[in-house]
Amino acid sequence: MRTLEWRGDHVVLIDQTRLPDETVWLEVGDVDTMIDAIRRLAVRGAPAIGVAGAFAVALAARRAEVTGSGDDAVRAEAARIADARPTAVNLAWAVNRVLAHLPSGADAVVAAAVALADEDVETNRRLARRGADLLVELAGTPLRVHTHCNTGGLACVEWGTALGIVRALHERNALTSVTADETRPLLQGSRLTAFELAQLGIAHQIVTDGAGPSVIARGLTDVVVVGADRIAANGDVANKIGTYPLALAAARAGVPFVVAAPESTLDPATATGDDIEIEARDPDEVLSFAGRRVAPAASDALNPAFDVTPADLVTAIVTERRTIRPAAGERP
Amino acid sequence: MRTLEWRGDHVVLIDQTRLPDETVWLEVGDVDTMIDAIRRLAVRGAPAIGVAGAFAVALAARRAEVTGSGDDAVRAEAARIADARPTAVNLAWAVNRVLAHLPSGADAVVAAAVALADEDVETNRRLARRGADLLVELAGTPLRVHTHCNTGGLACVEWGTALGIVRALHERNALTSVTADETRPLLQGSRLTAFELAQLGIAHQIVTDGAGPSVIARGLTDVVVVGADRIAANGDVANKIGTYPLALAAARAGVPFVVAAPESTLDPATATGDDIEIEARDPDEVLSFAGRRVAPAASDALNPAFDVTPADLVTAIVTERRTIRPAAGERP
Repeated sequence: MRTLEWRGDHVVLIDQTRLPDETVWLEVGDVDTMIDAIRRLAVRGAPAIGVAGAFAVALAARRAEVTGSGDDAVRAEAARIADARPTAVNLAWAVNRVLAHLPSGADAVVAAAVALADEDVETNRRLARRGADLLVELAGTPLRVHTHCNTGGLACVEWGTALGIVRALHERNALTSVTADETRPLLQGSRLTAFELAQLGIAHQIVTDGAGPSVIARGLTDVVVVGADRIAANGDVANKIGTYPLALAAARAGVPFVVAAPESTLDPATATGDDIEIEARDPDEVLSFAGRRVAPAASDALNPAFDVTPADLVTAIVTERRTIRPAAGERP
Repeated sequence: MRTLEWRGDHVVLIDQTRLPDETVWLEVGDVDTMIDAIRRLAVRGAPAIGVAGAFAVALAARRAEVTGSGDDAVRAEAARIADARPTAVNLAWAVNRVLAHLPSGADAVVAAAVALADEDVETNRRLARRGADLLVELAGTPLRVHTHCNTGGLACVEWGTALGIVRALHERNALTSVTADETRPLLQGSRLTAFELAQLGIAHQIVTDGAGPSVIARGLTDVVVVGADRIAANGDVANKIGTYPLALAAARAGVPFVVAAPESTLDPATATGDDIEIEARDPDEVLSFAGRRVAPAASDALNPAFDVTPADLVTAIVTERRTIRPAAGERP
């Protein structure tokens, strides 16, 4: 099942904010609605927002064709789309890739966006096979895998990156169980990853983000595998807030820490993790839950959406075509 | 303001599960109600549950006096009280201390429990002064302090341990601000610590537990100070789940990691952290948030209430009468 898809003149995508309570599909026919969907995380996950951004450029190109507003108007819309969220490099990468087809007309832009979505699926499959091989090589079999946030079919067009590897291990009967961090503040772990694992019939347990590191220290994890939003030229990895403590704990416990990401997440233009812009989201995501304030009225919050794991803590980065070992000194 | 107090024939205590929404005082007149209050965290915090346990033994002794059920009945009740929660050593310590007065009669037991509560206040004050001196010595002034869970007046009879140090720094104008982890699953940070800080007029920001380590890595913290539930003979520290990742991050960032606890939290009978029983609480605390189920029905959770920070990550343990430096090889 694809979680976002082009439908001729609009996009359909599953509203990730409503899961696991309800499966609601959104029809998105204009750029503003797509930017809003990206910002409020109705569509989220680095690969998925890349494809959503590509589709949004396609919508802009179609619209310009109808109104005759010209290529510059499409380029202005593309810039707005690329700015919807700052940290995941896949968004700007995908927007630029389909925008390059603008001189050939709107049909070419649409075709490029659809091709990018198809490619995401194939990339994920290859990444999952390579990643499953790597995890078994690093940690044996059967595996108790620890993961963070959501990197499954919901984070991509289908299948997934880190969770795609988990799925491949499950199909090979090489998986014992998954420990999933709940991933505050928006609970992508307990809402989305648990939803996907339950649907796949994979044994799993949810832990609070604070518990993840000691679960690793207690020997309950054979390998940690996470996704990425941007990987700097030196191998530093930006990923969902709460990734860094897992990397610290894994390094101390001698547990391999693996990052699964498509090549499009590697950003050679960004030298180190220090140069990655970390999105600061609304403090209210931390201070409230389901519309109910949990903290005192006078309290404020700091809500960084991502953290940076330094390269020396990353055992391996696995992409659809290669494996890089930053902790051993290799660089992307 | 004392958060729990003996009132002649019953105990009054603030119901910590209702804060910050409502300030509700419970009147506790029997052992079963006190055990229930301890188990469901209406009263929580290692020093506070020690005093609550002592008061519960006083209630049992008074009851035995009326019914004539004898000292063995009181000892049986004391054993049940000491078992209400397994990790914080203060509970068994306090129960045993007041129980030693049983041969002198119920009045002596009550007097011992009341003395223990008074002593907790005085211990906290001394600890706070010593701790504030230590933090300034380790990290200069003014300080940006990072803390976890709640270690304030609510966790003790009044004043607090780690948060008592924060309060002492504030009174000395040596404090810039406090970063408080929200402390899932029960949000003692965003509910209780933020409540106390707001009442004291101390500038603070709440972060998710997953964000704490990267906030430290980003240079936003001068010193980490936390409480403890049990400190083993080798200096390993059991404290609220989510403490260990802060210690890992602090060590990597070169930020001092300080544990503030009364001498009663030191447990020479427990050799290392591996020997500390870690309470596993109801998975539903993780699977639900503010009373609402967030995870799929098929999902399970692992809910350890505490983690163990190895001695080598602990810059200092400060008590009301000494400072121990485990990372430098000192042992309690």
